[in-house]
Amino acid sequence: MRITKLLAISGSLRAASINTALLRATARLAPPGIAVILFEHLGGLPLFNPDIEATDSPSVANLRAHLAAADGVLIASPEYAHGVTGVLKNALDWMVGSEAFVNKPISLFNASPRAVHAQACLRETLTVMSAQIVNEACVTLPMLGAQLDEAGIISHTEISAALKQALQDFQAAIARLQAEDAAQIGMSL
Amino acid sequence: MRITKLLAISGSLRAASINTALLRATARLAPPGIAVILFEHLGGLPLFNPDIEATDSPSVANLRAHLAAADGVLIASPEYAHGVTGVLKNALDWMVGSEAFVNKPISLFNASPRAVHAQACLRETLTVMSAQIVNEACVTLPMLGAQLDEAGIISHTEISAALKQALQDFQAAIARLQAEDAAQIGMSL
Repeated sequence: MRITKLLAISGSLRAASINTALLRATARLAPPGIAVILFEHLGGLPLFNPDIEATDSPSVANLRAHLAAADGVLIASPEYAHGVTGVLKNALDWMVGSEAFVNKPISLFNASPRAVHAQACLRETLTVMSAQIVNEACVTLPMLGAQLDEAGIISHTEISAALKQALQDFQAAIARLQAEDAAQIGMSL
Repeated sequence: MRITKLLAISGSLRAASINTALLRATARLAPPGIAVILFEHLGGLPLFNPDIEATDSPSVANLRAHLAAADGVLIASPEYAHGVTGVLKNALDWMVGSEAFVNKPISLFNASPRAVHAQACLRETLTVMSAQIVNEACVTLPMLGAQLDEAGIISHTEISAALKQALQDFQAAIARLQAEDAAQIGMSL
């Protein structure tokens, strides 16, 4: 059985971040055949400076390698001041000059139904980076009032079911996209 | 004569950044009565983490102190991947929990007429942070094709005239806003 490898990226560095908890819970809820790996090193990236070669930064190279090895990317991020968090945008800025997000399937988890500005900005940026946002695997979860931590998310019937469904939909979409890519490569040979 | 003190913030850390050059040129073009100080330490801020108290970071405290001392803020930033640069958004994220931008007059310099997404996101974020964007002092300058450095900007007749005009319009707007604030305080006493 081929494992679908998903890289999970949280836009918050807060230890008790609800977005990070959501991704940790998702990793534990993943069925056989799907592996979710949380990228824990976003806070170790330098601030983006085009004068620094990305290859000279081990932490940037590490993120690129994790992205290259992933079949898809799960992103969960809070909204700060009606925008994408600087932490997440900084990571994306480092990836712009590479192929890291080109044709990469993306699922966006949104822990707050009110965070519409950041999600719109994030979609715009990922789309111009040629990522493939998989809409059927994007979920908005009304979690802000619920005060759930990782264990609470896992034991919450509706939320855990929604996360499992998103993972399955994402896996199916990735398989379809990979098959299309393979067919296109075959046609162009 | 009271000096109008403007803090200039560039959204790029690149040494040859056209936005930074624009702000340096603006500082040199400023007439008597306006002092423009370029904030040179955005790259020294840590990545925003709500678990870290802003008061525990000397570089965050430094930015807040510079903002508190400024009558207005000039921002010039490139657009990265249709969004605000992570470097600039990270700085703004650190300021959200403070009064740093509340009622602060802002002038946005845009070195690229095509950078509409970043400017829109930046306006949304600054507005929700209760800053006062002074539209008559915001200028878009078609500089990308011109390959101008700081000296080239200063010697360019139209661009230097537009920058001087923006500074004068900004100073006038700041004086008007400060007079309105003083009147309101007087009325509420």
